[in-house]
Amino acid sequence: MIHFRNDYSMGAHPAVLEALCRTNGELTVGYGCDEHCEAAAETIRELCACPGAAVHFFTGGTQVNKTAIGAFLRSYEAVIAPDAGHICVHESGAVEQDGHKIIHCPTPDGKLTPAILRDVCNHHNGEHMVAPKLVYISNTTEVGTVYSREELRTLREVCNEQNLFLFCDGARLGCAMDAGDTSFEDYGAYCDAFTIGGTKNGLLFGEALVIVRPGLQRGFRHNMKQQGAILAKGRLLGVQFNAILEGGLYQELAAQANRMGRRLTAGLKALGVSLAVESPSNQVFAVLPDNAVSALPVDFTFERQGSADEGRTCIRLVTSWQSSEEDVDALLARLEELLK
Amino acid sequence: MIHFRNDYSMGAHPAVLEALCRTNGELTVGYGCDEHCEAAAETIRELCACPGAAVHFFTGGTQVNKTAIGAFLRSYEAVIAPDAGHICVHESGAVEQDGHKIIHCPTPDGKLTPAILRDVCNHHNGEHMVAPKLVYISNTTEVGTVYSREELRTLREVCNEQNLFLFCDGARLGCAMDAGDTSFEDYGAYCDAFTIGGTKNGLLFGEALVIVRPGLQRGFRHNMKQQGAILAKGRLLGVQFNAILEGGLYQELAAQANRMGRRLTAGLKALGVSLAVESPSNQVFAVLPDNAVSALPVDFTFERQGSADEGRTCIRLVTSWQSSEEDVDALLARLEELLK
Amino acid sequence: MIHFRNDYSMGAHPAVLEALCRTNGELTVGYGCDEHCEAAAETIRELCACPGAAVHFFTGGTQVNKTAIGAFLRSYEAVIAPDAGHICVHESGAVEQDGHKIIHCPTPDGKLTPAILRDVCNHHNGEHMVAPKLVYISNTTEVGTVYSREELRTLREVCNEQNLFLFCDGARLGCAMDAGDTSFEDYGAYCDAFTIGGTKNGLLFGEALVIVRPGLQRGFRHNMKQQGAILAKGRLLGVQFNAILEGGLYQELAAQANRMGRRLTAGLKALGVSLAVESPSNQVFAVLPDNAVSALPVDFTFERQGSADEGRTCIRLVTSWQSSEEDVDALLARLEELLK
Amino acid sequence: MIHFRNDYSMGAHPAVLEALCRTNGELTVGYGCDEHCEAAAETIRELCACPGAAVHFFTGGTQVNKTAIGAFLRSYEAVIAPDAGHICVHESGAVEQDGHKIIHCPTPDGKLTPAILRDVCNHHNGEHMVAPKLVYISNTTEVGTVYSREELRTLREVCNEQNLFLFCDGARLGCAMDAGDTSFEDYGAYCDAFTIGGTKNGLLFGEALVIVRPGLQRGFRHNMKQQGAILAKGRLLGVQFNAILEGGLYQELAAQANRMGRRLTAGLKALGVSLAVESPSNQVFAVLPDNAVSALPVDFTFERQGSADEGRTCIRLVTSWQSSEEDVDALLARLEELLK
Repeated sequence: MIHFRNDYSMGAHPAVLEALCRTNGELTVGYGCDEHCEAAAETIRELCACPGAAVHFFTGGTQVNKTAIGAFLRSYEAVIAPDAGHICVHESGAVEQDGHKIIHCPTPDGKLTPAILRDVCNHHNGEHMVAPKLVYISNTTEVGTVYSREELRTLREVCNEQNLFLFCDGARLGCAMDAGDTSFEDYGAYCDAFTIGGTKNGLLFGEALVIVRPGLQRGFRHNMKQQGAILAKGRLLGVQFNAILEGGLYQELAAQANRMGRRLTAGLKALGVSLAVESPSNQVFAVLPDNAVSALPVDFTFERQGSADEGRTCIRLVTSWQSSEEDVDALLARLEELLK
Repeated sequence: MIHFRNDYSMGAHPAVLEALCRTNGELTVGYGCDEHCEAAAETIRELCACPGAAVHFFTGGTQVNKTAIGAFLRSYEAVIAPDAGHICVHESGAVEQDGHKIIHCPTPDGKLTPAILRDVCNHHNGEHMVAPKLVYISNTTEVGTVYSREELRTLREVCNEQNLFLFCDGARLGCAMDAGDTSFEDYGAYCDAFTIGGTKNGLLFGEALVIVRPGLQRGFRHNMKQQGAILAKGRLLGVQFNAILEGGLYQELAAQANRMGRRLTAGLKALGVSLAVESPSNQVFAVLPDNAVSALPVDFTFERQGSADEGRTCIRLVTSWQSSEEDVDALLARLEELLK
Repeated sequence: MIHFRNDYSMGAHPAVLEALCRTNGELTVGYGCDEHCEAAAETIRELCACPGAAVHFFTGGTQVNKTAIGAFLRSYEAVIAPDAGHICVHESGAVEQDGHKIIHCPTPDGKLTPAILRDVCNHHNGEHMVAPKLVYISNTTEVGTVYSREELRTLREVCNEQNLFLFCDGARLGCAMDAGDTSFEDYGAYCDAFTIGGTKNGLLFGEALVIVRPGLQRGFRHNMKQQGAILAKGRLLGVQFNAILEGGLYQELAAQANRMGRRLTAGLKALGVSLAVESPSNQVFAVLPDNAVSALPVDFTFERQGSADEGRTCIRLVTSWQSSEEDVDALLARLEELLK
Repeated sequence: MIHFRNDYSMGAHPAVLEALCRTNGELTVGYGCDEHCEAAAETIRELCACPGAAVHFFTGGTQVNKTAIGAFLRSYEAVIAPDAGHICVHESGAVEQDGHKIIHCPTPDGKLTPAILRDVCNHHNGEHMVAPKLVYISNTTEVGTVYSREELRTLREVCNEQNLFLFCDGARLGCAMDAGDTSFEDYGAYCDAFTIGGTKNGLLFGEALVIVRPGLQRGFRHNMKQQGAILAKGRLLGVQFNAILEGGLYQELAAQANRMGRRLTAGLKALGVSLAVESPSNQVFAVLPDNAVSALPVDFTFERQGSADEGRTCIRLVTSWQSSEEDVDALLARLEELLK
């Protein structure tokens, strides 16, 4: 069985596992106040060129999105998000459970634009409506597209103009940096807060939250604790992030996932397969005849996205740092047979 | 100044005010457990042919929507609503504040359909998504349109099929019954819960919530208290509802509002004014040249809905039980001048 | 039947009812943005000598407590309250429903002290505990006792020292000012926010919230709307407060309630009845033999507080602006018979 | 440095770490729907003799308490807990953040009794108060004491009588079973839900929630997801629980912690040290002269509980599965010196 179902089901990268084993015997203080976490936070502050940033570690993406958004907003303040956003669809109403409306914005490519933000702000005024306050983007997006540095910069401008916070969900930040032109420093420069995802890029689990804006840092560990989001043996997160950030391993794993994604995209195009979205990263959305989709699961895993049109189905194929050229080529070869 | 701004700003109907004055000296038990409230509840149960219904009285519409929806749903259960729904836009995120996502459905006329409900249910499955559970409609809708008995009946069928609750916001229920073919009994037959609006139809304030489904009745006064929604001198609500429901006064006031709405609609059409929505009730959405919209406020009140297109603005004109033929004709005469 | 059950069940004072009738025909803007509310707010700002205060009107006490506390605090910030506090016991968990813990402090007389506040603050530290932030007191308290000006001043000092907000629930503020030495100006000087209760002192309904601290005023009408706490015909609240505040009527009604309370207290003492609390205001807690308590309801209403000891029960007797000397004397005469 | 600070800071037991390393290369489905989690759940159902129980895995204790209590209760339903309970003090208001009041009950030994439960239920009635619904106990308690089987059984009886749920926080369930007479089967028989703590007994992280009562099982994974409490690589929890539950290792580690606790207790008594609580398990509360408490941190870690009386401080000493006789004896020897 060759795996294209997702990028979060495999184990840890060997370097990460080795670090966990090596430090297992230590007796540190709990709850993420240990030296491993502090070192990882410091590394992140340096990478992002944000010496004043607060860095906190979480075990998962829904947890960090929910805790951060809940902490940053007053109850009547709302989130602006693309309707494909992870918080809109796949977090079971976690943000709303903490009291906040999400304003879903239709987009063709999963990306918010200055025009969308201004339009939402213009249509919300007065106390009978929620007050839009936080802009949620993800990079890469849920459909594999990527914000460029210039796009980030212009979103920041609109946020300044409209008095909004800019929050970037970086569950696949490594892939976004590899596929586009952004660097850690850009997120530090343009976002009020953002996450650096580890779960999909070599860790057993772990998302780092970087809170750049000083006004959003106050009392945050209280929010974490109240959400059940402080791990007792918090050092497990610091240890893993130190291992993955060392020597550019984080970027290397993301680059491998993207390379395999591009190889897959190129191969699909060569076979004449249409793609639902033009994705430069590790998520590929292929529209295939239903009979091909039915035959694939014998050897390959993937997710169905739903009917594309009469007789065709859209499927999501995800590559990861573990995907190999052989994996991709095997899928392409099988598809070539099925599409004959 | 002639008033078309809304239907909730005037005082009480004389019969209602008289009842409040007449009973002012009484010393009853508090919190709505008095004989006036019980009599009003019993009248409502009879009108709706729901002897087992629970009836509760609230001071306002947002309060009743929020309390009822919050009480009926588990935290991960969501509301399906037309995107023009009052809870979607004009209640400042009150439903989300209590933890529930609202799934906004685009509609041309403010009305949900069986196809929309089935589509939403088909697209939500598994624990990573919210579970759609309560269907929110309003009758009349926020754009003045009306659900017919047959439409209510088919929504009920889909709710049974998909295991959903049907909740009708009846802030303008009198106008809905007058403009369409529904009766109190239909709401009792097809809804799990609904409200009978008094604030816009002759009361100082007051919305009656009718909970038809026995399983939703448990512990509801606890929910009311927790929401700060039990009035100390609760009898004020019973007294007012008794006054307005007696002798068909409730229906009579709604009929007057609708008559004036239809007179206005007919007059506007005769003047060649285009209407944004075809409304058979007391809310009329007229698209007028910007210069006419600018000139009107000298003598008339109304609300702007936003730019319709280049040079034209959509305004909302609302008639009420206090509107007179003279009011409507004065507006039409003025518009005739302005549109020359 | 003579009424000592509570002070919130009777109708409005005639001057208040007259004002409502007189203004019934007006057509003002809705939601409390009208001239009556503005005038009432201005009167209150003057009475309290707080020209910069924000004043908002609510229909009930639980609603105002819940909305204010929910708006003022971050989710992990907690309330310090005496365990007899209204929000602790009789609001069905309204404050907790909005996410905030209340730290219940045992007190003999329903009053917080500097020592209690310091002790709570000393015992709460770090992110594993809630952060005490708002001090809730009521004046008069739920057991009829009264904070003096000096007591308010010293609580203020501790709040400054510990970085706490001071919130006073003034459901019976008139009685507190009459029975003690405080004035409206003292609440304006020492509290961050407080309420002026109307429901128990001559209105049909109405509590005015005065937010003194500028930092707590931002966005507050959004919070009100989200809580369903903005009345459509908001002017009803302004009209009533204008009527009751004019010519010192507010203070006069409270004085009458207290006079009758003191007459009752003196009479009970003369009969040798023990009092559970020494109350200088309109709530009297009498400990009576069970057989007397069983016989009273033939002619008098009151509330049982629970068993005091073997064979005796504590009851609450409440006087109001409607209580007369005849009422009090009738009760005392009946008790004299029963206690023979 | 010898560690008595807590029982949750050390790494995993070698058998657990080995299992994680061995399975690291697997590619399973995500979110805890894999075969490792299913096997662990099945083992737990067998141990508890609850074939119909639902078993879910969490990364931490606050997370599981918050999610379970939030899912089990309606918003106005409250928790009854001993005032030393973990949810009362050390979870930063997590339960309240989800809307529920906790009724704190003073206890001398951290244990609830039938009399306390009945008393709370008798004092709560009507919609103005919260409705007590869930009884929260922990075994062992936060002060190291233990509920016996008979105590559990009588609490169950009162819960049946008063229509309450019984929830046991088993963060230290192994120690409770070892120090008392309860078995897994007793929790399955007497509780509606309970947890089996792994974090403090050999795992990197992991708490298993066993939901015995069928009516509480519905939709629970929705609640977990909404709380951000489903781990992407959920199998990590199943793998660890399988390792620790195999061959009685779970019980063995708890027994070692308790043995060291009892050795410490006996040694302290022999030195004439007074204990704040009589604890039969791995948490020991010693009252020591301030100068001894100041000297200890050179070689030993522990937590201060606060001043006991003039010149003495209470400290918490915690043993774990990693504590050795040498550790305990070193501490006792040092204390002997200091107390001379």
